[in-house]
Amino acid sequence: MTAFRWVPPFAQGLVRDHRVRWALEEAGLAYEERLIGPEDQRTESFLRQQPFGQVPVYEEDDLVLFESGAIVLHIAERSEALMPTEPRARARVKAWMFAALNSVEPHVMNYTSLDVFHGQEEWARLRKPSALAMAESRLSGVAKWLEGKEYLEDRFTAGDLLMTTVLRILRDTDVLKRMPVLEAYRLRCEARPAFQRSLAAQLAPFARNAPPAPKG
Amino acid sequence: MTAFRWVPPFAQGLVRDHRVRWALEEAGLAYEERLIGPEDQRTESFLRQQPFGQVPVYEEDDLVLFESGAIVLHIAERSEALMPTEPRARARVKAWMFAALNSVEPHVMNYTSLDVFHGQEEWARLRKPSALAMAESRLSGVAKWLEGKEYLEDRFTAGDLLMTTVLRILRDTDVLKRMPVLEAYRLRCEARPAFQRSLAAQLAPFARNAPPAPKG
Repeated sequence: MTAFRWVPPFAQGLVRDHRVRWALEEAGLAYEERLIGPEDQRTESFLRQQPFGQVPVYEEDDLVLFESGAIVLHIAERSEALMPTEPRARARVKAWMFAALNSVEPHVMNYTSLDVFHGQEEWARLRKPSALAMAESRLSGVAKWLEGKEYLEDRFTAGDLLMTTVLRILRDTDVLKRMPVLEAYRLRCEARPAFQRSLAAQLAPFARNAPPAPKG
Repeated sequence: MTAFRWVPPFAQGLVRDHRVRWALEEAGLAYEERLIGPEDQRTESFLRQQPFGQVPVYEEDDLVLFESGAIVLHIAERSEALMPTEPRARARVKAWMFAALNSVEPHVMNYTSLDVFHGQEEWARLRKPSALAMAESRLSGVAKWLEGKEYLEDRFTAGDLLMTTVLRILRDTDVLKRMPVLEAYRLRCEARPAFQRSLAAQLAPFARNAPPAPKG
């Protein structure tokens, strides 16, 4: 699996290969990482593996896969730790996987990227209230669903895994602090040993490859 | 399957139930539609089926599914018309399904929603160039991938189905006119009889339930 050699602190622990590491840890599967840098992302050979020049790319024998959601699904389909065996329950897990990545993440990203990528721009300041309202509307849907439940369905699944990685994108905001059901859910999922191992695994190369601190 | 009784013209042909109708037509499966209106979207009983109050909800025996991507996947897993049988090829189809909905659609929506939902707002005018650049960057990745190919993989699959429904969101812009490979691909997929039938099926209730035209 590809991952980045180093990323700035705002992205550490959020880069999408973390989802795949977490799924592999839950499934008890060993993996090797291939670390790349910005100079590798635009090469012809990399774009033939990942059309958008992003990480992660996942290789297993002669299968090459991209899209963190699809890779997590591929692993989950082979591991009862991430997906029950009963067909209807499996379909429900996939519904939550798409919900996390298509109904929630885009709006969470729209809100957090205002500060992270556009903090100095006038439009970002003006856009903030409507972006927050849209993100909160989708998050409220999840929070309401989770009331009285530990997980999205009746046990931890790949749907919870992806939803948690989406909620984590809000870590530098106070949005989840105002939604105690969601915050408790995030903490419950992050307390899993497989989560802890996968996070440590992503962070390790960043520590090794950190650029020298500015002198002074 | 739920669909809307009526939506304004800008959304006609784009509402997400169209994806599911198209998948069902490709698979040769009959279905019944249950038409709803805005007054139904926020009811407790509907939110228990669709946590975000959106369409479509899909019911099959005692399975209730939401998220158009997950419903199309559910249908595709049962129909060779949408997904080959070979396991690696199936994993690749799912990669493109997630690519369409997680790597391309959010950026396409960000661009088109500026005019559709925020046309009168100052931030939307200022935001436009960067939103267009981001959408074009992801679309270029798909266009480059498609060079010399008819489909994303070696035949039409559920990945092409979802990607086409994402490209269609740009119909009122000139973005695809500047990307002839993508435009030809969209037209190729839309020429399929199953696409034509599914589009007609979504539009039929909108014609029946159109509000009275303003007098004068």
